[in-house]
Amino acid sequence: MKTILIVGIGTGNSEHLTVQAINALNRADVLFIPDKGESKADLADLRREIIARYVTNPNSRTVDYAVPKRDAANPDYGNGVDDWHAALATRFATLLEEVPKDGHCAFLVWGDPGLYDSTIRIVDRLRSQHDFAVEIIPGITSIQALTAAHGIALNRIGEPVHITTGRRLSEGDLPSDTIVMLDGQTAFTGVDPDLNIFWGAYLGTEHEMTISGRVGDVAERIVEARRLARQQHGWIMDTYLLRHRD
Amino acid sequence: MKTILIVGIGTGNSEHLTVQAINALNRADVLFIPDKGESKADLADLRREIIARYVTNPNSRTVDYAVPKRDAANPDYGNGVDDWHAALATRFATLLEEVPKDGHCAFLVWGDPGLYDSTIRIVDRLRSQHDFAVEIIPGITSIQALTAAHGIALNRIGEPVHITTGRRLSEGDLPSDTIVMLDGQTAFTGVDPDLNIFWGAYLGTEHEMTISGRVGDVAERIVEARRLARQQHGWIMDTYLLRHRD
Ligand SMILES: C[S@@+](CC[C@H](N)C(=O)[O-])C[C@H]1O[C@@H](n2cnc3c(N)ncnc32)[C@H](O)[C@@H]1O
Ligand SMILES: C[S@@+](CC[C@H](N)C(=O)[O-])C[C@H]1O[C@@H](n2cnc3c(N)ncnc32)[C@H](O)[C@@H]1O
Repeated sequence: MKTILIVGIGTGNSEHLTVQAINALNRADVLFIPDKGESKADLADLRREIIARYVTNPNSRTVDYAVPKRDAANPDYGNGVDDWHAALATRFATLLEEVPKDGHCAFLVWGDPGLYDSTIRIVDRLRSQHDFAVEIIPGITSIQALTAAHGIALNRIGEPVHITTGRRLSEGDLPSDTIVMLDGQTAFTGVDPDLNIFWGAYLGTEHEMTISGRVGDVAERIVEARRLARQQHGWIMDTYLLRHRD
Repeated sequence: MKTILIVGIGTGNSEHLTVQAINALNRADVLFIPDKGESKADLADLRREIIARYVTNPNSRTVDYAVPKRDAANPDYGNGVDDWHAALATRFATLLEEVPKDGHCAFLVWGDPGLYDSTIRIVDRLRSQHDFAVEIIPGITSIQALTAAHGIALNRIGEPVHITTGRRLSEGDLPSDTIVMLDGQTAFTGVDPDLNIFWGAYLGTEHEMTISGRVGDVAERIVEARRLARQQHGWIMDTYLLRHRD
Protein backbone atom coordinates (compact mmCIF):
# COMPACT_ATOMS: atom_id res chain seq x y z
CA MET A 1 0.00 0.00 0.00
CA LYS A 2 1.16 3.55 -0.70
CA THR A 3 1.51 6.04 2.15
CA ILE A 4 0.64 9.71 1.92
CA LEU A 5 2.53 11.88 4.40
CA ILE A 6 0.84 15.22 5.06
CA VAL A 7 3.64 17.23 6.58
CA GLY A 8 3.25 20.56 8.37
CA ILE A 9 6.23 22.79 7.52
CA GLY A 10 5.49 25.84 9.68
CA THR A 11 4.81 29.31 8.44
CA GLY A 12 7.73 30.64 6.49
CA ASN A 13 10.76 29.97 8.67
CA SER A 14 12.59 26.84 7.53
CA GLU A 15 13.62 26.35 11.17
CA HIS A 16 9.98 25.75 12.09
CA LEU A 17 10.49 22.24 10.74
CA THR A 18 10.22 19.60 13.45
CA VAL A 19 12.51 16.59 13.64
CA GLN A 20 9.44 14.47 12.95
CA ALA A 21 8.74 16.45 9.77
CA ILE A 22 12.36 16.17 8.61
CA ASN A 23 12.28 12.42 9.15
CA ALA A 24 8.97 12.17 7.29
CA LEU A 25 10.32 14.11 4.30
CA ASN A 26 13.24 11.71 4.20
CA ARG A 27 10.92 8.73 4.08
CA ALA A 28 9.23 10.03 0.93
CA ASP A 29 10.04 8.71 -2.52
CA VAL A 30 8.22 11.64 -4.07
CA LEU A 31 7.79 15.16 -2.68
CA PHE A 32 4.98 17.26 -4.14
CA ILE A 33 5.43 21.01 -4.60
CA PRO A 34 2.31 23.05 -5.31
CA ASP A 35 2.65 25.85 -7.83
CA LYS A 36 0.19 28.62 -7.06
CA GLY A 37 1.38 30.97 -9.78
CA GLU A 38 3.86 33.80 -10.13
CA SER A 39 2.77 35.99 -7.26
CA LYS A 40 3.22 33.24 -4.72
CA ALA A 41 6.57 32.01 -6.07
CA ASP A 42 8.17 32.89 -2.70
CA LEU A 43 6.09 30.17 -1.11
CA ALA A 44 7.14 27.49 -3.59
CA ASP A 45 10.72 28.68 -3.08
CA LEU A 46 10.46 28.11 0.65
CA ARG A 47 9.37 24.53 0.05
CA ARG A 48 12.35 24.04 -2.25
CA GLU A 49 14.67 25.56 0.34
CA ILE A 50 13.31 23.20 2.97
CA ILE A 51 13.87 20.20 0.73
CA ALA A 52 17.38 21.34 -0.19
CA ARG A 53 18.26 21.91 3.46
CA TYR A 54 16.77 18.83 5.09
CA VAL A 55 16.18 16.06 2.56
CA THR A 56 19.22 13.83 2.43
CA ASN A 57 17.52 10.76 0.96
CA PRO A 58 19.24 10.42 -2.45
CA ASN A 59 16.40 8.34 -3.88
CA SER A 60 13.67 10.93 -3.59
CA ARG A 61 12.50 13.31 -6.24
CA THR A 62 10.22 16.33 -6.32
CA VAL A 63 7.19 16.72 -8.56
CA ASP A 64 5.65 20.13 -9.18
CA TYR A 65 1.95 20.44 -9.77
CA ALA A 66 -0.19 23.41 -10.71
CA VAL A 67 -2.87 24.22 -8.15
CA PRO A 68 -6.21 24.89 -9.84
CA LYS A 69 -7.73 28.23 -8.88
CA ARG A 70 -10.80 28.45 -6.69
CA ASP A 71 -13.64 30.26 -8.44
CA ALA A 72 -13.89 33.22 -6.05
CA ALA A 73 -16.72 34.58 -8.22
CA ASN A 74 -19.00 31.70 -7.24
CA PRO A 75 -21.63 33.39 -5.07
CA ASP A 76 -22.10 30.20 -3.03
CA TYR A 77 -18.90 29.88 -0.95
CA GLY A 78 -19.59 26.25 -0.04
CA ASN A 79 -20.16 25.18 -3.66
CA GLY A 80 -17.10 27.09 -4.84
CA VAL A 81 -14.93 25.27 -2.33
CA ASP A 82 -16.50 21.95 -3.18
CA ASP A 83 -15.77 22.32 -6.91
CA TRP A 84 -12.25 23.39 -6.11
CA HIS A 85 -11.63 20.40 -3.85
CA ALA A 86 -13.00 18.10 -6.53
CA ALA A 87 -10.53 19.57 -9.05
CA LEU A 88 -7.67 19.17 -6.57
CA ALA A 89 -8.69 15.57 -5.83
CA THR A 90 -8.41 14.77 -9.54
CA ARG A 91 -4.96 16.33 -9.54
CA PHE A 92 -3.93 14.35 -6.45
CA ALA A 93 -5.10 11.09 -8.01
CA THR A 94 -2.74 11.74 -10.92
CA LEU A 95 0.09 12.57 -8.53
CA LEU A 96 -0.46 9.30 -6.70
CA GLU A 97 0.45 7.46 -9.91
CA GLU A 98 3.97 8.91 -9.53
CA VAL A 99 4.44 6.97 -6.30
CA PRO A 100 6.07 3.53 -6.53
CA LYS A 101 4.15 0.51 -5.24
CA ASP A 102 4.38 0.46 -1.40
CA GLY A 103 6.19 3.80 -1.63
CA HIS A 104 5.75 7.04 0.31
CA CYS A 105 4.89 10.50 -0.93
CA ALA A 106 4.74 13.78 0.96
CA PHE A 107 2.68 16.93 0.70
CA LEU A 108 4.42 19.90 2.31
CA VAL A 109 1.65 21.86 3.98
CA TRP A 110 1.98 25.46 5.18
CA GLY A 111 1.68 25.73 8.97
CA ASP A 112 -0.24 22.83 10.46
CA PRO A 113 -2.27 20.54 8.16
CA GLY A 114 -5.28 20.76 10.51
CA LEU A 115 -5.71 24.53 10.49
CA TYR A 116 -7.64 26.08 7.58
CA ASP A 117 -6.00 23.81 5.05
CA SER A 118 -7.75 21.48 2.66
CA THR A 119 -5.11 18.80 2.06
CA ILE A 120 -6.53 16.33 4.60
CA ARG A 121 -10.03 16.69 3.19
CA ILE A 122 -8.90 16.33 -0.41
CA VAL A 123 -6.89 13.22 0.38
CA ASP A 124 -9.98 11.85 2.17
CA ARG A 125 -11.92 12.23 -1.06
CA LEU A 126 -9.59 9.79 -2.79
CA ARG A 127 -10.29 7.01 -0.30
CA SER A 128 -13.34 5.67 -2.12
CA GLN A 129 -11.30 5.03 -5.29
CA HIS A 130 -7.80 4.37 -4.02
CA ASP A 131 -6.22 2.37 -1.26
CA PHE A 132 -3.52 4.12 0.77
CA ALA A 133 -2.41 4.97 4.30
CA VAL A 134 -2.19 8.53 5.59
CA GLU A 135 0.09 10.01 8.25
CA ILE A 136 -0.25 13.57 9.46
CA ILE A 137 2.76 15.39 10.89
CA PRO A 138 1.84 18.49 12.92
CA GLY A 139 3.51 21.82 12.15
CA ILE A 140 3.88 25.23 13.77
CA THR A 141 0.83 27.35 12.91
CA SER A 142 0.65 31.05 12.14
CA ILE A 143 -1.20 31.43 15.46
CA GLN A 144 1.86 30.27 17.41
CA ALA A 145 4.14 32.37 15.21
CA LEU A 146 1.91 35.38 15.95
CA THR A 147 1.88 35.06 19.72
CA ALA A 148 5.62 34.25 19.84
CA ALA A 149 6.40 37.34 17.74
CA HIS A 150 4.38 39.53 20.10
CA GLY A 151 5.72 37.85 23.21
CA ILE A 152 2.22 37.13 24.49
CA ALA A 153 0.11 34.17 25.51
CA LEU A 154 -2.80 33.26 23.25
CA ASN A 155 -5.28 33.00 26.10
CA ARG A 156 -5.85 35.08 29.18
CA ILE A 157 -5.67 32.99 32.38
CA GLY A 158 -8.35 30.29 32.26
CA GLU A 159 -10.19 32.14 29.48
CA PRO A 160 -11.33 30.69 26.14
CA VAL A 161 -10.03 31.65 22.71
CA HIS A 162 -11.95 31.76 19.48
CA ILE A 163 -10.45 31.16 16.03
CA THR A 164 -12.34 32.48 13.05
CA THR A 165 -12.04 33.97 9.57
CA GLY A 166 -12.28 37.51 8.22
CA ARG A 167 -15.59 36.60 6.58
CA ARG A 168 -17.12 35.44 9.85
CA LEU A 169 -15.76 38.39 11.77
CA SER A 170 -17.56 40.73 9.38
CA GLU A 171 -20.70 38.86 10.33
CA GLY A 172 -20.17 39.80 13.96
CA ASP A 173 -18.52 36.68 15.34
CA LEU A 174 -16.53 37.78 18.43
CA PRO A 175 -17.53 35.77 21.49
CA SER A 176 -14.16 36.13 23.30
CA ASP A 177 -10.49 36.80 22.57
CA THR A 178 -10.39 35.98 18.89
CA ILE A 179 -7.78 34.96 16.33
CA VAL A 180 -8.72 36.02 12.81
CA MET A 181 -7.25 34.26 9.79
CA LEU A 182 -7.98 34.42 6.07
CA ASP A 183 -8.96 38.07 6.28
CA GLY A 184 -8.63 39.66 2.85
CA GLN A 185 -11.00 42.47 3.75
CA THR A 186 -9.32 44.00 6.84
CA ALA A 187 -12.38 43.11 8.91
CA PHE A 188 -10.68 44.51 12.03
CA THR A 189 -11.60 48.01 10.86
CA GLY A 190 -15.20 47.15 11.70
CA VAL A 191 -14.79 45.90 15.28
CA ASP A 192 -15.10 47.71 18.64
CA PRO A 193 -12.26 50.29 18.57
CA ASP A 194 -11.61 49.63 22.25
CA LEU A 195 -10.36 46.11 21.65
CA ASN A 196 -6.62 45.48 21.53
CA ILE A 197 -5.21 44.05 18.34
CA PHE A 198 -1.99 42.05 17.92
CA TRP A 199 -1.38 41.89 14.18
CA GLY A 200 1.33 40.07 12.25
CA ALA A 201 2.17 39.48 8.62
CA TYR A 202 4.78 37.24 6.93
CA LEU A 203 5.30 35.70 10.37
CA GLY A 204 8.38 33.53 10.52
CA THR A 205 9.79 34.94 7.29
CA GLU A 206 12.47 37.59 6.84
CA HIS A 207 9.67 40.06 6.04
CA GLU A 208 7.91 39.53 9.41
CA MET A 209 5.93 42.60 10.52
CA THR A 210 3.99 43.16 13.73
CA ILE A 211 1.80 46.01 14.99
CA SER A 212 -0.18 46.08 18.22
CA GLY A 213 -2.33 48.51 20.16
CA ARG A 214 -5.90 49.68 20.63
CA VAL A 215 -7.84 49.01 17.42
CA GLY A 216 -9.03 52.61 17.27
CA ASP A 217 -5.43 53.80 17.42
CA VAL A 218 -3.65 51.38 15.07
CA ALA A 219 -6.21 50.10 12.54
CA GLU A 220 -5.33 52.74 9.95
CA ARG A 221 -1.61 52.06 10.33
CA ILE A 222 -2.19 48.36 9.79
CA VAL A 223 -4.34 48.97 6.70
CA GLU A 224 -1.58 51.13 5.23
CA ALA A 225 1.28 48.78 6.20
CA ARG A 226 -0.66 45.89 4.73
CA ARG A 227 -1.30 47.72 1.45
CA LEU A 228 2.33 48.74 1.00
CA ALA A 229 3.74 45.33 1.89
CA ARG A 230 1.36 43.57 -0.42
CA GLN A 231 2.37 45.88 -3.24
CA GLN A 232 6.04 45.28 -2.51
CA HIS A 233 5.97 41.47 -2.18
CA GLY A 234 3.08 40.66 -4.49
CA TRP A 235 1.34 38.64 -1.74
CA ILE A 236 0.52 38.91 1.91
CA MET A 237 -0.53 36.55 4.69
CA ASP A 238 -1.56 38.15 7.92
CA THR A 239 -3.39 37.15 11.03
CA TYR A 240 -4.29 38.84 14.30
CA LEU A 241 -5.58 38.44 17.81
CA LEU A 242 -8.38 40.70 19.08
CA ARG A 243 -8.27 40.89 22.86
CA HIS A 244 -10.62 42.51 25.32
CA ARG A 245 -8.76 45.12 27.34
CA ASP A 246 -8.59 44.52 31.09
CA MET B 1 21.77 41.90 29.34
CA LYS B 2 20.61 38.33 30.02
CA THR B 3 18.26 36.59 27.62
CA ILE B 4 15.44 34.28 28.64
CA LEU B 5 14.50 31.76 25.97
CA ILE B 6 11.00 30.34 26.41
CA VAL B 7 11.13 27.25 24.25
CA GLY B 8 8.13 25.17 23.20
CA ILE B 9 9.10 21.49 23.19
CA GLY B 10 5.91 19.89 21.88
CA THR B 11 3.70 17.49 23.74
CA GLY B 12 5.60 14.38 24.65
CA ASN B 13 7.32 13.29 21.46
CA SER B 14 10.95 14.39 21.43
CA GLU B 15 10.64 14.61 17.62
CA HIS B 16 8.18 17.49 18.02
CA LEU B 17 11.23 19.69 18.59
CA THR B 18 11.71 22.25 15.85
CA VAL B 19 15.10 23.14 14.43
CA GLN B 20 14.56 26.61 15.90
CA ALA B 21 14.00 25.10 19.36
CA ILE B 22 17.08 22.89 19.07
CA ASN B 23 19.18 25.90 18.11
CA ALA B 24 17.73 27.90 20.98
CA LEU B 25 18.53 25.16 23.51
CA ASN B 26 22.08 25.16 22.22
CA ARG B 27 22.38 28.90 22.78
CA ALA B 28 21.55 28.52 26.47
CA ASP B 29 24.18 28.57 29.19
CA VAL B 30 21.65 27.25 31.66
CA LEU B 31 18.65 25.00 31.02
CA PHE B 32 15.93 24.93 33.66
CA ILE B 33 14.07 21.71 34.42
CA PRO B 34 10.89 22.00 36.47
CA ASP B 35 10.29 19.28 39.03
CA LYS B 36 6.58 18.79 39.61
CA GLY B 37 6.95 15.87 41.99
CA GLU B 38 7.01 12.09 41.80
CA SER B 39 3.83 11.49 39.87
CA LYS B 40 4.93 13.66 36.98
CA ALA B 41 8.50 12.32 36.83
CA ASP B 42 7.82 11.10 33.26
CA LEU B 43 7.50 14.71 32.19
CA ALA B 44 10.81 15.79 33.73
CA ASP B 45 12.38 12.71 32.12
CA LEU B 46 11.18 13.83 28.69
CA ARG B 47 12.89 17.17 29.18
CA ARG B 48 16.09 15.36 30.14
CA GLU B 49 15.79 13.10 27.12
CA ILE B 50 15.37 16.12 24.87
CA ILE B 51 18.45 17.77 26.32
CA ALA B 52 20.50 14.57 26.04
CA ARG B 53 19.42 14.09 22.45
CA TYR B 54 19.73 17.60 21.08
CA VAL B 55 21.97 19.76 23.24
CA THR B 56 25.53 19.55 21.94
CA ASN B 57 26.80 22.77 23.54
CA PRO B 58 29.42 21.48 25.99
CA ASN B 59 29.29 24.66 28.06
CA SER B 60 25.68 24.44 29.13
CA ARG B 61 24.36 22.97 32.32
CA THR B 62 20.92 22.08 33.64
CA VAL B 63 19.38 23.38 36.85
CA ASP B 64 16.42 21.62 38.44
CA TYR B 65 13.88 23.64 40.37
CA ALA B 66 10.89 22.55 42.41
CA VAL B 67 7.61 23.95 41.12
CA PRO B 68 5.51 25.31 43.99
CA LYS B 69 2.02 23.81 44.12
CA ARG B 70 -1.04 25.85 43.23
CA ASP B 71 -3.48 25.97 46.12
CA ALA B 72 -6.39 24.20 44.41
CA ALA B 73 -8.39 24.64 47.61
CA ASN B 74 -8.51 28.41 47.16
CA PRO B 75 -12.17 29.04 46.35
CA ASP B 76 -11.25 32.07 44.22
CA TYR B 77 -9.61 30.60 41.10
CA GLY B 78 -8.14 33.95 40.03
CA ASN B 79 -6.55 34.63 43.42
CA GLY B 80 -5.23 31.09 43.66
CA VAL B 81 -3.50 31.48 40.29
CA ASP B 82 -2.19 34.91 41.22
CA ASP B 83 -0.56 33.65 44.44
CA TRP B 84 0.90 30.73 42.55
CA HIS B 85 2.37 32.96 39.84
CA ALA B 86 3.86 35.22 42.52
CA ALA B 87 5.55 32.21 44.13
CA LEU B 88 6.87 31.07 40.75
CA ALA B 89 8.16 34.56 39.95
CA THR B 90 10.19 34.51 43.17
CA ARG B 91 11.61 31.15 42.13
CA PHE B 92 12.42 32.44 38.63
CA ALA B 93 14.23 35.48 40.07
CA THR B 94 16.52 33.11 41.97
CA LEU B 95 17.07 31.02 38.84
CA LEU B 96 18.07 34.12 36.91
CA GLU B 97 21.01 34.52 39.27
CA GLU B 98 22.41 31.27 37.86
CA VAL B 99 22.76 32.89 34.45
CA PRO B 100 26.14 34.48 33.60
CA LYS B 101 26.20 38.16 32.68
CA ASP B 102 25.02 38.58 29.08
CA GLY B 103 24.26 34.86 29.11
CA HIS B 104 21.23 32.90 27.92
CA CYS B 105 18.93 30.63 29.84
CA ALA B 106 16.08 28.45 28.59
CA PHE B 107 12.78 27.29 29.99
CA LEU B 108 11.55 24.13 28.25
CA VAL B 109 7.80 24.59 27.99
CA TRP B 110 5.36 21.78 27.26
CA GLY B 111 3.60 22.26 23.91
CA ASP B 112 3.55 25.90 22.85
CA PRO B 113 4.40 28.62 25.40
CA GLY B 114 1.34 30.64 24.33
CA LEU B 115 -1.30 28.02 25.03
CA TYR B 116 -2.55 27.64 28.61
CA ASP B 117 0.91 28.02 30.05
CA SER B 118 2.04 30.59 32.60
CA THR B 119 5.75 30.91 31.82
CA ILE B 120 5.39 34.04 29.65
CA ARG B 121 3.26 35.77 32.28
CA ILE B 122 5.58 34.85 35.15
CA VAL B 123 8.61 36.10 33.27
CA ASP B 124 6.68 39.32 32.55
CA ARG B 125 6.27 39.81 36.29
CA LEU B 126 10.04 40.01 36.70
CA ARG B 127 10.38 42.91 34.30
CA SER B 128 9.78 45.58 36.89
CA GLN B 129 12.73 44.37 39.00
CA HIS B 130 15.12 42.86 36.45
CA ASP B 131 16.45 43.76 33.08
CA PHE B 132 16.50 41.02 30.46
CA ALA B 133 15.44 40.14 26.94
CA VAL B 134 12.90 37.45 26.11
CA GLU B 135 12.59 35.25 23.05
CA ILE B 136 9.70 32.88 22.52
CA ILE B 137 10.12 29.80 20.36
CA PRO B 138 6.81 28.27 19.24
CA GLY B 139 6.15 24.55 19.78
CA ILE B 140 3.69 21.91 18.62
CA THR B 141 0.57 22.08 20.80
CA SER B 142 -1.59 19.26 22.08
CA ILE B 143 -4.30 20.56 19.72
CA GLN B 144 -2.18 19.79 16.68
CA ALA B 145 -1.12 16.46 18.17
CA LEU B 146 -4.81 15.66 18.69
CA THR B 147 -6.00 16.42 15.17
CA ALA B 148 -2.95 14.71 13.61
CA ALA B 149 -3.58 11.57 15.69
CA HIS B 150 -7.21 11.46 14.53
CA GLY B 151 -6.36 12.32 10.93
CA ILE B 152 -8.80 15.23 10.93
CA ALA B 153 -8.76 18.97 10.37
CA LEU B 154 -9.38 21.20 13.38
CA ASN B 155 -11.96 23.33 11.61
CA ARG B 156 -14.79 22.50 9.27
CA ILE B 157 -14.52 24.40 5.97
CA GLY B 158 -14.61 28.15 6.68
CA GLU B 159 -16.03 27.52 10.17
CA PRO B 160 -14.70 28.90 13.46
CA VAL B 161 -13.18 26.88 16.28
CA HIS B 162 -13.40 27.56 19.98
CA ILE B 163 -10.74 26.62 22.53
CA THR B 164 -11.79 26.38 26.13
CA THR B 165 -11.26 24.59 29.45
CA GLY B 166 -13.14 21.85 31.27
CA ARG B 167 -14.28 24.40 33.84
CA ARG B 168 -15.79 26.68 31.22
CA LEU B 169 -17.39 23.83 29.35
CA SER B 170 -19.25 22.84 32.51
CA GLU B 171 -20.58 26.37 32.54
CA GLY B 172 -22.12 25.78 29.12
CA ASP B 173 -19.53 27.35 26.83
CA LEU B 174 -19.95 25.67 23.42
CA PRO B 175 -20.50 28.24 20.67
CA SER B 176 -19.05 26.11 17.85
CA ASP B 177 -16.68 23.21 17.28
CA THR B 178 -14.75 23.27 20.52
CA ILE B 179 -11.38 22.09 21.79
CA VAL B 180 -11.42 21.38 25.53
CA MET B 181 -8.21 21.42 27.55
CA LEU B 182 -7.45 21.23 31.26
CA ASP B 183 -10.47 19.08 31.91
CA GLY B 184 -10.03 17.19 35.16
CA GLN B 185 -13.74 16.63 35.59
CA THR B 186 -14.67 14.83 32.33
CA ALA B 187 -16.97 17.70 31.40
CA PHE B 188 -17.79 15.97 28.09
CA THR B 189 -20.19 13.70 29.98
CA GLY B 190 -22.45 16.73 30.39
CA VAL B 191 -22.69 17.91 26.76
CA ASP B 192 -25.24 17.18 24.05
CA PRO B 193 -24.89 13.39 23.44
CA ASP B 194 -25.37 14.00 19.71
CA LEU B 195 -22.06 15.82 19.33
CA ASN B 196 -19.04 13.95 18.01
CA ILE B 197 -16.02 13.76 20.24
CA PHE B 198 -12.39 13.22 19.19
CA TRP B 199 -10.52 12.47 22.40
CA GLY B 200 -6.81 11.91 22.95
CA ALA B 201 -4.53 11.34 25.93
CA TYR B 202 -0.73 11.22 26.22
CA LEU B 203 -0.64 12.53 22.66
CA GLY B 204 2.78 12.30 21.10
CA THR B 205 4.05 9.89 23.76
CA GLU B 206 4.40 6.13 23.56
CA HIS B 207 1.20 5.86 25.63
CA GLU B 208 -0.89 7.82 23.11
CA MET B 209 -4.59 6.86 23.21
CA THR B 210 -7.45 8.07 21.02
CA ILE B 211 -11.18 7.42 21.05
CA SER B 212 -13.78 9.03 18.80
CA GLY B 213 -17.48 8.76 18.12
CA ARG B 214 -20.84 10.15 19.14
CA VAL B 215 -20.60 11.46 22.71
CA GLY B 216 -23.61 9.43 23.77
CA ASP B 217 -21.94 6.27 22.48
CA VAL B 218 -18.35 6.70 23.68
CA ALA B 219 -18.39 8.94 26.77
CA GLU B 220 -18.51 6.02 29.19
CA ARG B 221 -15.65 4.27 27.38
CA ILE B 222 -13.54 7.42 27.62
CA VAL B 223 -14.28 7.87 31.32
CA GLU B 224 -13.20 4.28 31.96
CA ALA B 225 -10.10 4.41 29.73
CA ARG B 226 -9.09 7.66 31.41
CA ARG B 227 -9.49 6.21 34.88
CA LEU B 228 -7.47 3.09 34.12
CA ALA B 229 -4.68 4.97 32.34
CA ARG B 230 -4.38 7.49 35.11
CA GLN B 231 -4.10 4.69 37.63
CA GLN B 232 -1.47 2.97 35.54
CA HIS B 233 0.74 5.99 34.75
CA GLY B 234 0.10 8.14 37.84
CA TRP B 235 -0.83 11.12 35.66
CA ILE B 236 -2.90 11.92 32.60
CA MET B 237 -3.15 14.77 30.14
CA ASP B 238 -6.02 14.62 27.73
CA THR B 239 -7.79 16.94 25.38
CA TYR B 240 -10.64 16.64 22.93
CA LEU B 241 -12.57 18.23 20.10
CA LEU B 242 -16.37 18.41 20.25
CA ARG B 243 -17.80 18.71 16.76
CA HIS B 244 -21.32 19.23 15.56
CA ARG B 245 -22.41 16.31 13.38
CA ASP B 246 -23.27 17.16 9.78
C1 LIG C 1 -5.14 28.81 4.22
S1 LIG C 1 -4.72 29.39 5.83
C2 LIG C 1 -3.45 28.28 6.26
C3 LIG C 1 -3.07 28.32 7.72
C4 LIG C 1 -1.92 27.38 8.06
N1 LIG C 1 -2.29 25.98 7.82
C5 LIG C 1 -1.45 27.57 9.49
O1 LIG C 1 -1.30 26.55 10.21
O2 LIG C 1 -1.19 28.70 9.88
C6 LIG C 1 -3.89 30.89 5.43
C7 LIG C 1 -4.04 31.94 6.50
O3 LIG C 1 -3.14 31.65 7.56
C8 LIG C 1 -2.57 32.84 8.07
N2 LIG C 1 -1.12 32.78 7.86
C9 LIG C 1 -0.45 31.73 7.34
N3 LIG C 1 0.86 31.98 7.31
C10 LIG C 1 1.05 33.20 7.84
C11 LIG C 1 2.18 34.01 8.12
N4 LIG C 1 3.41 33.58 7.82
N5 LIG C 1 1.99 35.22 8.69
C12 LIG C 1 0.75 35.63 9.00
N6 LIG C 1 -0.35 34.92 8.77
C13 LIG C 1 -0.22 33.71 8.21
C14 LIG C 1 -3.23 33.99 7.34
O4 LIG C 1 -4.34 34.42 8.10
C15 LIG C 1 -3.68 33.35 6.06
O5 LIG C 1 -4.79 33.99 5.51
C1 LIG D 1 -1.32 23.53 31.18
S1 LIG D 1 -1.96 23.05 29.63
C2 LIG D 1 -0.55 23.17 28.61
C3 LIG D 1 -0.84 23.10 27.13
C4 LIG D 1 0.41 23.13 26.28
N1 LIG D 1 1.12 24.39 26.43
C5 LIG D 1 0.11 22.89 24.82
O1 LIG D 1 0.58 23.65 23.97
O2 LIG D 1 -0.58 21.90 24.48
C6 LIG D 1 -2.18 21.33 29.90
C7 LIG D 1 -3.34 20.75 29.11
O3 LIG D 1 -2.92 20.54 27.77
C8 LIG D 1 -3.47 19.35 27.25
N2 LIG D 1 -2.33 18.47 26.90
C9 LIG D 1 -1.03 18.77 27.00
N3 LIG D 1 -0.26 17.76 26.57
C10 LIG D 1 -1.10 16.77 26.19
C11 LIG D 1 -0.90 15.49 25.63
N4 LIG D 1 0.32 15.00 25.40
N5 LIG D 1 -2.00 14.75 25.34
C12 LIG D 1 -3.23 15.24 25.57
N6 LIG D 1 -3.47 16.45 26.08
C13 LIG D 1 -2.42 17.23 26.39
C14 LIG D 1 -4.37 18.78 28.32
O4 LIG D 1 -5.68 19.26 28.07
C15 LIG D 1 -3.80 19.40 29.58
O5 LIG D 1 -4.79 19.50 30.58
